[in-house]
Amino acid sequence: MTKALTHIDSDGNARMVDVGQKPDTYRMAVASGRITMSSKALTAIRDGDAPKGDVLGTARIAGIMAAKRTADLIPLCHPLPIDAVNIDFSFEDGAIRVIAKAHLTGKTGVEMEAITATSIALVTIYDMAKALDNGMTIQDISLIEKVGGKSGHWIAKGTDC
Amino acid sequence: MTKALTHIDSDGNARMVDVGQKPDTYRMAVASGRITMSSKALTAIRDGDAPKGDVLGTARIAGIMAAKRTADLIPLCHPLPIDAVNIDFSFEDGAIRVIAKAHLTGKTGVEMEAITATSIALVTIYDMAKALDNGMTIQDISLIEKVGGKSGHWIAKGTDC
Amino acid sequence: MTKALTHIDSDGNARMVDVGQKPDTYRMAVASGRITMSSKALTAIRDGDAPKGDVLGTARIAGIMAAKRTADLIPLCHPLPIDAVNIDFSFEDGAIRVIAKAHLTGKTGVEMEAITATSIALVTIYDMAKALDNGMTIQDISLIEKVGGKSGHWIAKGTDC
Amino acid sequence: MTKALTHIDSDGNARMVDVGQKPDTYRMAVASGRITMSSKALTAIRDGDAPKGDVLGTARIAGIMAAKRTADLIPLCHPLPIDAVNIDFSFEDGAIRVIAKAHLTGKTGVEMEAITATSIALVTIYDMAKALDNGMTIQDISLIEKVGGKSGHWIAKGTDC
Amino acid sequence: MTKALTHIDSDGNARMVDVGQKPDTYRMAVASGRITMSSKALTAIRDGDAPKGDVLGTARIAGIMAAKRTADLIPLCHPLPIDAVNIDFSFEDGAIRVIAKAHLTGKTGVEMEAITATSIALVTIYDMAKALDNGMTIQDISLIEKVGGKSGHWIAKGTDC
Amino acid sequence: MTKALTHIDSDGNARMVDVGQKPDTYRMAVASGRITMSSKALTAIRDGDAPKGDVLGTARIAGIMAAKRTADLIPLCHPLPIDAVNIDFSFEDGAIRVIAKAHLTGKTGVEMEAITATSIALVTIYDMAKALDNGMTIQDISLIEKVGGKSGHWIAKGTDC
Repeated sequence: MTKALTHIDSDGNARMVDVGQKPDTYRMAVASGRITMSSKALTAIRDGDAPKGDVLGTARIAGIMAAKRTADLIPLCHPLPIDAVNIDFSFEDGAIRVIAKAHLTGKTGVEMEAITATSIALVTIYDMAKALDNGMTIQDISLIEKVGGKSGHWIAKGTDC
Repeated sequence: MTKALTHIDSDGNARMVDVGQKPDTYRMAVASGRITMSSKALTAIRDGDAPKGDVLGTARIAGIMAAKRTADLIPLCHPLPIDAVNIDFSFEDGAIRVIAKAHLTGKTGVEMEAITATSIALVTIYDMAKALDNGMTIQDISLIEKVGGKSGHWIAKGTDC
Repeated sequence: MTKALTHIDSDGNARMVDVGQKPDTYRMAVASGRITMSSKALTAIRDGDAPKGDVLGTARIAGIMAAKRTADLIPLCHPLPIDAVNIDFSFEDGAIRVIAKAHLTGKTGVEMEAITATSIALVTIYDMAKALDNGMTIQDISLIEKVGGKSGHWIAKGTDC
Repeated sequence: MTKALTHIDSDGNARMVDVGQKPDTYRMAVASGRITMSSKALTAIRDGDAPKGDVLGTARIAGIMAAKRTADLIPLCHPLPIDAVNIDFSFEDGAIRVIAKAHLTGKTGVEMEAITATSIALVTIYDMAKALDNGMTIQDISLIEKVGGKSGHWIAKGTDC
Repeated sequence: MTKALTHIDSDGNARMVDVGQKPDTYRMAVASGRITMSSKALTAIRDGDAPKGDVLGTARIAGIMAAKRTADLIPLCHPLPIDAVNIDFSFEDGAIRVIAKAHLTGKTGVEMEAITATSIALVTIYDMAKALDNGMTIQDISLIEKVGGKSGHWIAKGTDC
Repeated sequence: MTKALTHIDSDGNARMVDVGQKPDTYRMAVASGRITMSSKALTAIRDGDAPKGDVLGTARIAGIMAAKRTADLIPLCHPLPIDAVNIDFSFEDGAIRVIAKAHLTGKTGVEMEAITATSIALVTIYDMAKALDNGMTIQDISLIEKVGGKSGHWIAKGTDC
């Protein structure tokens, strides 16, 4: 925690870390999460029969747009001109998995962009499918891989990359 | 699904439901979710020692502001002039729980506002504490109570209200 | 022009019209526009082979989201809690047509929402296809139908509805 | 199309191009478009008699602000820290022409900023003048000049620069 | 303060007031503020010679647009579908005065919209004129009149209305 | 004014300055302002008894978030990827002072970010405390220090730094 203390003010007030001394380097982050739902809802989504239309296409756009707005949503995040963010989906047993991958050449990591994209993509799936299942739950949003910065290439424990 | 078919177009394209025929009635929704973290991180947050400062105060504001932007984030949500949204936190064993409650007098439910507020509050906690623990995971975001609309007063199974 | 003078100040300065005295009534507006492009680009979009992926699905979401932000983009527009906005596409000879339809129960018309949705959907198609054709042109954005307000049910000349 | 295939995923899903490998170079783009209207409306705008006030001054600001929000409006556009965007107008026979010019030192072109600025400036003129003429039409939005990137200095066919 | 305690939670946490029980009534608010500057800067603005162009026209649009975004900027403000907001300027001795007037038919007052509009109009004047005078100061932003709600028709002491 | 004429067009129209030829250098700006209020209101804020909860914590977040949105609020400001912005408060006799400090490595100064942060933090205090005192006034918003650009290290007259 000694390191951390360099960017907390004496009163514990919210404070942006000053990244001005950091060089621009390659950064990448992958986040993931799942939304559990009934097999009826999963089938409707897979078959394009969900009541509001194309669930995954809409969630993909929502996630990408949210990633670009991360600094506008998360109070202490820095505005980052991301090189790209992309989102993939996979069907699991009783769930849809979202994987978001963000790229940047910049001064600080893009894990918040990946996590924000994942979260909003999942919330969008929730919105598109809530008429089919009111018991959906969003689970397991976490960082699974990160490149760049002090930690170098980091992979979450238990992740097959 | 017959009912749902009233608001899907013939090609499965994304489409906003027209709420114009619905009357303005009282709506309320409560959503909840958790972020798991190490005891070291939990202690730092509780003691006001997190590296970016006041974690829960910042997450509360982020969640409230995100709720007001739900229609700007979730593509097919309607813009809703919410009467209020508020956020509470509780410390659990190995996690912080977020509960968001939204109120509206309007034509459609506010569950998306409550779920968006919960999600962004959790993502903000992640941002504020990620220097303390890189293995945090967001879990169990779901709707736990809803008042208004066709379903009347709905409480999720297993919820003590 | 006598009527118009009720909402211009004496110096010709930009000024929002005060809609406070108007009742909430049903409003609907339909706008349309086209983007011309090469047959190669049209074929790629129709076949799902455009370089950035699903052109029409992305443009539909962009248009819907832009409609909800009309008052944030067009300086003197009123914030309107629209009941719905939806977007359809059709393939024409050498062009794609966008039709956007907006609904509101409110104090003023939704033609700007329909026109903003049309414009941003067309600009999004331009972005998604510009690697295929650098000579695309956006044409014929206009209002084609309007319901509500003083003009009652208005249909543009030459429109088959 | 072989080149294009490097940035489409295997399923045709919407996807941001990764610009991380590109160097920062000078970029410029000019877009243009027109809005046709009655001579009565043109005269009112020219004379400062339009019902909502200063039409062109308001449209200029709306276009500049929209250019800065391009990545927030167009789903797959990259956030670009533009060096400048400026907008000019000219009166034509039965129309007002908008010309928007954007500058950037960056990794990708600014044509979408120029086209977005043009579109929103035109839609703003529409809004400011719609009480004068309900038959206005937006025409001919296209790129007319571009500097930087693979295509070097590109000028649209038939353009006098 | 007893009244106030009805909308503070037990821990002093930030909290939106629930306006759901309030009826929609007519609301109006007027705010005002000034920016002091050198006579050279005042002259340049009055003569249209400021380095970035039309200062007051730009500040008017910025203020109107900011008013519409009040709930997006001020964390605990409610989203309000304002009926109108308008801004006027006057030249004073060594200063420019901004007056912003907002109207609403709704559940809560529009004083924050008027004050936000005033503030952002003043900050925009600062931006447009800062190359002319680096000692400008924004002064006296306050509410000067309010109609509606419990206080009825309120006028600030010392105001000539 | 000769210098200024390089960035004004011939008609006095609003125009963004092109910063493309400027190098990226270190920039810093400090702005300050005050809000006057009754001793009752000051005491409530200091003691955490204000009706909407934590006034200064909320104003700090609002100011930081507004700084990141400066280019979205002030029409001719450039989008700047700020390295940090932070906000401090002090209690004065009959007032609360806000000090905002912004950092950037970039092509143009960050004084507008510091001034926007100060203004919105003050407006947020107003919102949080208006139920306690309807005579609050925002005063003395000005730039107090600036580093970088042509003026080098500039300190406002009468400032003790």
